[in-house]
Amino acid sequence: MFKKILYPTDFSVEAARALAYVKNLKNAGSEEVVLLHVIDRRGLSDLSRFATKDVAGILGEMELKAKKEMDEIERELKELGFKVRIRIEKGDPCREMLRIEEEENVSVIIIGARGKASSLPKMLLGSVSYNLVRKANKPVLIVKK
Amino acid sequence: MFKKILYPTDFSVEAARALAYVKNLKNAGSEEVVLLHVIDRRGLSDLSRFATKDVAGILGEMELKAKKEMDEIERELKELGFKVRIRIEKGDPCREMLRIEEEENVSVIIIGARGKASSLPKMLLGSVSYNLVRKANKPVLIVKK
Repeated sequence: MFKKILYPTDFSVEAARALAYVKNLKNAGSEEVVLLHVIDRRGLSDLSRFATKDVAGILGEMELKAKKEMDEIERELKELGFKVRIRIEKGDPCREMLRIEEEENVSVIIIGARGKASSLPKMLLGSVSYNLVRKANKPVLIVKK
Repeated sequence: MFKKILYPTDFSVEAARALAYVKNLKNAGSEEVVLLHVIDRRGLSDLSRFATKDVAGILGEMELKAKKEMDEIERELKELGFKVRIRIEKGDPCREMLRIEEEENVSVIIIGARGKASSLPKMLLGSVSYNLVRKANKPVLIVKK
């Protein structure tokens, strides 16, 4: 039921809070965690207009940085006895999460979200999380502030 | 983290599916379940126009029926070692769930939902669940078909 967890993270406080729930499910039969970070390509075309480096260079740096953070989380999870798979994807966060949900055939998704949902488009993790809840096929545990 | 679970049920297949997740959390430190059924008062004023009995009579019957179903779920949960509290409330389902969430100071809410959310207003459990996810303060596990 909680065997294979998809845990998408943007390395925010909210995501860290959700990670605590992931760890807690070890005792409920959870065995494997798919650790997912999506590099949001949607912002990159804007970014490239102002950046001195090319998009490929920026992406490479973002990927390296993400990898480093993921390695740390992987270490923590492995210490608890989880099997871990790291996936760093590029694209639209919600679409990528749904793609990985299916591709990895996970049992459940655990994700953090900012407090109460507002309709402000700026609440990125918020809107991504709520969209995910609506569109996912598998159960979603959404952890708020 | 999963100590006190709020489990709202409308006795649907989706709610039954969510119940399986409630039971599974026993091993993750869950101790108590607040079993909640909300008799949706919103539909009752319409109903009373067509019914031969008065609203109080209809409510009483609904309550008795709900109590019977709740007793059965309570028995199942107690067999697994859970402490159980039964609450039957009347009103707007989402508002009542949020009220009980706060009143009972639960750790997490586990609720069923129909498949992919559509915007059809007829998808009652759907819209109630998604509203709950948006407005709840505590983590919500939403279990789909």
